[in-house]
Amino acid sequence: MTAEMGKFVVLDGPDGCGKSTQARLVSEWLAGRGLAVVSYRDPGTTVIGEKIREILLNPCHTAMADNVEVLLYMAARAQLWAEHIGPDLVHGRCVVMDRWLSSTCAYQGCAGGFGVDKVLSIAADALERIWPDATVILDIDGETARSRMQRDLDRMEQKGADYHAKVRQGFLALEGRCPNLAVVDAGGTVDQVHQAVLTHLKAVFGWR
Amino acid sequence: MTAEMGKFVVLDGPDGCGKSTQARLVSEWLAGRGLAVVSYRDPGTTVIGEKIREILLNPCHTAMADNVEVLLYMAARAQLWAEHIGPDLVHGRCVVMDRWLSSTCAYQGCAGGFGVDKVLSIAADALERIWPDATVILDIDGETARSRMQRDLDRMEQKGADYHAKVRQGFLALEGRCPNLAVVDAGGTVDQVHQAVLTHLKAVFGWR
Repeated sequence: MTAEMGKFVVLDGPDGCGKSTQARLVSEWLAGRGLAVVSYRDPGTTVIGEKIREILLNPCHTAMADNVEVLLYMAARAQLWAEHIGPDLVHGRCVVMDRWLSSTCAYQGCAGGFGVDKVLSIAADALERIWPDATVILDIDGETARSRMQRDLDRMEQKGADYHAKVRQGFLALEGRCPNLAVVDAGGTVDQVHQAVLTHLKAVFGWR
Repeated sequence: MTAEMGKFVVLDGPDGCGKSTQARLVSEWLAGRGLAVVSYRDPGTTVIGEKIREILLNPCHTAMADNVEVLLYMAARAQLWAEHIGPDLVHGRCVVMDRWLSSTCAYQGCAGGFGVDKVLSIAADALERIWPDATVILDIDGETARSRMQRDLDRMEQKGADYHAKVRQGFLALEGRCPNLAVVDAGGTVDQVHQAVLTHLKAVFGWR
């Protein structure tokens, strides 16, 4: 008997959009329906991935080239797939991600100028699977996002308003490229956003 | 006035083949001819690259997936190009490398089973330049190589005799794919090998 595959769900969007909170709420909602669910952050989670994350986000690493960013994000993702996501899905566990390939498309591909086509080409060669079953982009304007980030900023977050405006456009440009993607206005209350996220997931998976 | 580009030379081959020694001798020979020359090891050299190298070679990281190895080696290489090799060549300095993309083809592409075509496809997307002006593969049998490595082995070196036999075949299979490549028997004395390396470089560059 083969168990049904778990669903692979990604919450993504600009820094400060509320991904982590919404990923937690989605996980709780799924668990409340009796589904097995795990949630991870990308990059990170694995021992190797957390070390890669430190290299990526260390504010001292100002010399990092755009293509290096792409390769390191992809490496952390591939390790997370090998150790966790792949086995989880096979064993019927739903996986709720805080970021995925959509971030590399928006940040390095679009804002960094590396090119989304090249990001996707590397992903096709390097990853076991590229796109999740459903993606929600939490869209937010730069000013609101910055007002939510009252803490020391990491290397990516320090890249400035112009870069982050392009990141936002990069996320919006994924419509039509990333299957089962919805853009949700993340400017509302936590519960408003949560309801909008659920509306999309229910539509994709036929959940009630 | 545009300065003449420096030459990009790679010494590569299985662990224990004598790459580092031969890279040093080539650098000294070039410097003795009055050429500006720098020498780097791949992965490593840059701050970011040395951190990536630590992740790659740490014997505790037994969970590392093959595609992660490919991406991390490529990331270290891309950073080394951005910070050093690219500017060096533009400024007319010869670059002598201890390893390059040929290693990723032989180790992960061939021995690890990731596939050489996929390694080269990722390299084409991610690197500014794929192949050097000249490559010398120092070929050696596994027994002789192991006898030269009287020290604690890193994670890659610990992969066992079968893996390393495939690595050797992977290097030999680069003939015809990597331009200006020569395979040199690295079983001789240091000076014999050095003379064979010079013979190839003189032929490629027209040096006397």
